[in-house]
Amino acid sequence: MKVLVINCGSSSLKYQLFDMTNEHVLVKGLVERIGLEGSILSQKNGEDKYEIKVDIPDHTKAISLVTAALVDPQHGVIKSMDEISAIGHRVVHGAEDFSGSVVINPEVMKSLNENIELAPLHNPPNIMGIQACQKIMPNVLQVGVFDTAFHQTMPPHAYHYGIPYEYYKKYKMRKYGFHGTSHQYVAERAAAMLGKPIDQIKVITCHLGNGASLAAIKYGKSIDTSMGYTPLEGVMMGTRSGDLDPAVVCMLMKKENWNIEQVDNFLNKQSGVLGVSGVSSDFRDIENAAIEDSNVRAQLALDRFAYVVKKYIGSYMAVLNGADAVVFTAGLGENSSSMRAKICEDMEFFGINIDKDKNFTRGVEVDVSTNDSKTRVLVIPTNEELMIARDTNKLMKTGKQSL
Amino acid sequence: MKVLVINCGSSSLKYQLFDMTNEHVLVKGLVERIGLEGSILSQKNGEDKYEIKVDIPDHTKAISLVTAALVDPQHGVIKSMDEISAIGHRVVHGAEDFSGSVVINPEVMKSLNENIELAPLHNPPNIMGIQACQKIMPNVLQVGVFDTAFHQTMPPHAYHYGIPYEYYKKYKMRKYGFHGTSHQYVAERAAAMLGKPIDQIKVITCHLGNGASLAAIKYGKSIDTSMGYTPLEGVMMGTRSGDLDPAVVCMLMKKENWNIEQVDNFLNKQSGVLGVSGVSSDFRDIENAAIEDSNVRAQLALDRFAYVVKKYIGSYMAVLNGADAVVFTAGLGENSSSMRAKICEDMEFFGINIDKDKNFTRGVEVDVSTNDSKTRVLVIPTNEELMIARDTNKLMKTGKQSL
Repeated sequence: MKVLVINCGSSSLKYQLFDMTNEHVLVKGLVERIGLEGSILSQKNGEDKYEIKVDIPDHTKAISLVTAALVDPQHGVIKSMDEISAIGHRVVHGAEDFSGSVVINPEVMKSLNENIELAPLHNPPNIMGIQACQKIMPNVLQVGVFDTAFHQTMPPHAYHYGIPYEYYKKYKMRKYGFHGTSHQYVAERAAAMLGKPIDQIKVITCHLGNGASLAAIKYGKSIDTSMGYTPLEGVMMGTRSGDLDPAVVCMLMKKENWNIEQVDNFLNKQSGVLGVSGVSSDFRDIENAAIEDSNVRAQLALDRFAYVVKKYIGSYMAVLNGADAVVFTAGLGENSSSMRAKICEDMEFFGINIDKDKNFTRGVEVDVSTNDSKTRVLVIPTNEELMIARDTNKLMKTGKQSL
Repeated sequence: MKVLVINCGSSSLKYQLFDMTNEHVLVKGLVERIGLEGSILSQKNGEDKYEIKVDIPDHTKAISLVTAALVDPQHGVIKSMDEISAIGHRVVHGAEDFSGSVVINPEVMKSLNENIELAPLHNPPNIMGIQACQKIMPNVLQVGVFDTAFHQTMPPHAYHYGIPYEYYKKYKMRKYGFHGTSHQYVAERAAAMLGKPIDQIKVITCHLGNGASLAAIKYGKSIDTSMGYTPLEGVMMGTRSGDLDPAVVCMLMKKENWNIEQVDNFLNKQSGVLGVSGVSSDFRDIENAAIEDSNVRAQLALDRFAYVVKKYIGSYMAVLNGADAVVFTAGLGENSSSMRAKICEDMEFFGINIDKDKNFTRGVEVDVSTNDSKTRVLVIPTNEELMIARDTNKLMKTGKQSL
């Protein structure tokens, strides 16, 4: 029972091979610079590190190298590709077509192609990855696991925008939300940590990495999330602006004489904490600049990030009428005790009280709130790959095909 | 001690004359269709109604008619314009130049002109109104009262956007907030109703009319508000979209092949509850459609409006770490018991409990929460004109001139 999990970007491909009898990762690897000069595959299996530096013009070549690495007599972990029973693919945008993971079939492929417009940067490489696997391993079951699926339970008043209804019908313009696999994973872990069934708890999950989003999860279902039609909406991120007065978009175009692509690039790649701080998109660099150089703009970036997350927590407290726990995950959420402390400061009204000592932790599952904190504060490392492997395994067993 | 309060739009002019010894309104009136066909002045003094239908090509002519109406032997309320000691003007955008009301002088006029770009629809008629008064009543002290001034106490992490800092410096792109005079007025009334000094209470004020905004007011000072760089940001309104994924702005332009002006017009005038419901921008029409015709889109517009306001209340609860009161004001806030109830539903976690019977009220100052509601819910009719009159009176007495 081995499941291969694949996450394709436009010029990269990440993979992990799971043994589903015990959910252990047998090996993980990364192909970088696909279609570019200096392409490379690097695989890691415990202490063993393995690199292949060859020309990798496309995703098909990348997948064939992955299979070669997996069965490599010296560095591989399986004898034959036949040992792999299914492949799970991360797919960014499933629009309204998918509210759960699905076995890939021609109908699914058609739908993925139709949704390219909604995620022009992400869906095409996801599709290429699936097609490459179909070519190299035509007999292996493939499953699509969508970033958007978990949020498909949002009610209409949460996902509609304040624009004429016709534009929702015409262009599918609505809030979708992303990071769904991560939000779902940590919500399930939160239930386990609280010792309660997931359908009896309310949690606010904060996925804070270079991309960042929050979700309000009621009895196991996402009822709101901060990212929207695209991953630009919501909290300020590494290089993305997050929420803005829509008039700012127009005014930037007018003032700078920018076209749509230019303003889109500006808001997605030059804004966020990078733009505010002028230092970096990496919170560690920003924190260093704020502390060591007393950099005022770096401090502003940290203050504003914490403030915006705090406001989202408040709005989801309203939506949920209180929560059992607030969960921190992803790079910053798992590792930055200072940012967690800053966000949770002065939130006693919500019954949120962080224990300073417990909060001094990185990357492990732990309850960091005081014993008497009415709302628990949990740190839970996310594991999207495991979620994808689980969904893939489940669908392989049931053989369920749905659209 | 009589103060004339003037609120100029591009083709309209509202006025009220106050006797500041007792803060009574002596007379109020409205000039409509300035510069258009069918222009008219209508004035109301108790039962007495007075109309002048003449050609009113500009604001100077409008002001001269106002003065004529005020001293009219039959319908007027004063014998001579000399009785008016000062004129207070509502000015929409004071940018970062004004954190309070000011006596108009050449320096102030220069600043108002410089800020036209930030409020191209509003500041020009405000300026015209001031100039008309200067021409007709050159010896009367004039005061500018700004919609933005009250929010100038917001801290940087609340007013900065997640865009590069340079754009704040270059174009003054930041959150300003509006309806400041109204938020301040109802916050002061809330303090009086709670029997506490304003510098000891925290309140969330909800100004819900055709334009709508919320403010988080801590110890008498605005620390956050939902409108932003322009009055487009924040909650969904009558015809304005409110918050959006910034990418939606770009996608609309791309799909519809719109220019900046077209998308701006779409988001400001064709969106909001009008666009969602497809019925009207007036909440009474929408409520009728939802109830009487079971119109699904009308119901969605109501649901979404209440939901977004609820989320803002939550985010301000986070920012304030709890509040003494939530205040409802302006057209919808003062008059719609159903909308107030809908917004406050399932908010027990915040200590918010509405008393159904008390909430069945319109347009009067009343505490509509249950006796044991930890957070009070207050309905307070706003009175921006009185605030303007008070500020004007105060500045006239102190003769304070500040920039």
